[in-house]
Amino acid sequence: MNFVALAGGIGGAKMADGLARSVGAENLTVIVNTGDDFDLFGLRISPDVDTVMYTLAGLADPDHGWGLAEDRWANFEMLERYGAHPWYRLGDRDLATHMLRTQALRDGDTPTQVTTRLARALGLTTRVLPMTDGKVRTVVDTASGTLAYQEYFVRLRWQPRVTAIRFEGVERAEATLEVLRAIETADTIVLCPSNPYLSVDPILRTGGVRDALLNASAPIIAVSPIVGGSALNGPAAKLMRELGETPSATTVAHHYAEFINGFVMDVVDAEHEHAIRDLGLGVLVTRTVMKSLDDRARLGCEVVTFADSLRPEHLGGCRIADELPPQTDR
Amino acid sequence: MNFVALAGGIGGAKMADGLARSVGAENLTVIVNTGDDFDLFGLRISPDVDTVMYTLAGLADPDHGWGLAEDRWANFEMLERYGAHPWYRLGDRDLATHMLRTQALRDGDTPTQVTTRLARALGLTTRVLPMTDGKVRTVVDTASGTLAYQEYFVRLRWQPRVTAIRFEGVERAEATLEVLRAIETADTIVLCPSNPYLSVDPILRTGGVRDALLNASAPIIAVSPIVGGSALNGPAAKLMRELGETPSATTVAHHYAEFINGFVMDVVDAEHEHAIRDLGLGVLVTRTVMKSLDDRARLGCEVVTFADSLRPEHLGGCRIADELPPQTDR
Repeated sequence: MNFVALAGGIGGAKMADGLARSVGAENLTVIVNTGDDFDLFGLRISPDVDTVMYTLAGLADPDHGWGLAEDRWANFEMLERYGAHPWYRLGDRDLATHMLRTQALRDGDTPTQVTTRLARALGLTTRVLPMTDGKVRTVVDTASGTLAYQEYFVRLRWQPRVTAIRFEGVERAEATLEVLRAIETADTIVLCPSNPYLSVDPILRTGGVRDALLNASAPIIAVSPIVGGSALNGPAAKLMRELGETPSATTVAHHYAEFINGFVMDVVDAEHEHAIRDLGLGVLVTRTVMKSLDDRARLGCEVVTFADSLRPEHLGGCRIADELPPQTDR
Repeated sequence: MNFVALAGGIGGAKMADGLARSVGAENLTVIVNTGDDFDLFGLRISPDVDTVMYTLAGLADPDHGWGLAEDRWANFEMLERYGAHPWYRLGDRDLATHMLRTQALRDGDTPTQVTTRLARALGLTTRVLPMTDGKVRTVVDTASGTLAYQEYFVRLRWQPRVTAIRFEGVERAEATLEVLRAIETADTIVLCPSNPYLSVDPILRTGGVRDALLNASAPIIAVSPIVGGSALNGPAAKLMRELGETPSATTVAHHYAEFINGFVMDVVDAEHEHAIRDLGLGVLVTRTVMKSLDDRARLGCEVVTFADSLRPEHLGGCRIADELPPQTDR
């Protein structure tokens, strides 16, 4: 069985981890947004890829959602001693990821090759694939001008009012063969509960992905990142309002309607079920908030079982291991 | 009074610190070798500049001579967890220097501007000047092929037999105006006890330095890095043998004879005094091994007083502060 998840940051990483825990880490491929990538101090930083890797490896910081658990800050303190006050915090251990990525890219590796090596070195059996080996940079047009993604998201804490989101370079960026092949051969595809505009759209817009999804034989399921009209993390709901939409599960379902067969939303949004069924979609209403590792695995299992119900021949549900250590410990 | 020191790594940094402690930090300019600079993990590393800065700031690691005292190694441990085993160790705090330098160079600053900013941020009043804003890369021809400097010096611990030393790019590299002006306006110039071939020659060979030294009005003093036929740090004596010279104070004096007026060597080498006087040089025989901060300051004072004795009108000797904290604490 081949499971494919399309993921951005924290919500996407948790969903991917839930799938890995319920279907077997080695059966999962995660296609990750790289529109947030940027350079700082000469280092190439790929935040969504790292969040997915760290989460799958059981190393993610449980409080922030980004970075490594129990990281150290001697480097940051020295930067401050120099009078630098970076708005993007890089932990001492986290820096190693960026340093190795930067060195490998300089040595001629592709982002896909680098990510594969780093993920394996962390003990992952799940394949983590950047959406492209090309360069896509998400920029945000706001009332106060055009901002690079990290300026908007981290430095300004997504406070400026957004008028448009653009993916610079996306018209020239091609999905890798690994990405296209994963979609083509998938038995189930999940659009994770990441920000649709900032995290999933860059993947969908990358050359080849749209056609691959439209041609995919697998059921495609989207999990709503909007719960009760709010986003669990980040600016998804705020962005919907600013872009003239109502923040709701229905809006998310509409956004993905072209691609998906099924939609998963929270019990608090049950009122939207009929509107979404009217889009011709199967609907699963369940608890979608992932607070614990058990929540992730249970939701992963439910999403996979739901997907299975949407195809002519059922392939058999998922299995959840009784104990759920991170895959690196299995 | 303007004092100028030409310095490479550890020995040069200690001598520069001794001069700063004896003549007043704000009266000293240190011109530093950048032939050892290299890129690692996308970061620009300038080891001699950093060793001088850290030493003058009282932050240098007292055991290794490189890096920062009491640095942390969480980053290095994470690199190892990834299966990387870098032969060049970068401490968590030390990394901040390389990150800020790299960012500033990318933003268009010159090495001189970057170094000035970093040194000031560390509280230094001594001017620390890279020998050039151009690119010089020291390479070593050895029995086992041509090696980049750090490959030779750090990775292979200077064990390969050297047949030649070359400074790639030096024919195009110009000393900065700041360097040339410092030499021109100096009252005393000191060639520190750094490796003559690897640390001082790159400075002397940089465009404009030789002429500036030959035209300088200040007495020029060299302090021998060879004591009793051995180098206190590193491969100077080994290199001399490999390049067909006898490792001795006399060999060092010969090497610099074109430029210098006076030569400082250790009491254990007193037998060389006449040979060196025969080169037309003034000679100071004293204890040159700097084990303590007091040793540095005393030697600095003696060197300056010796230089003063070599000019027609004495300018007055040095002063040593009773207490000798690093200049950042004064």
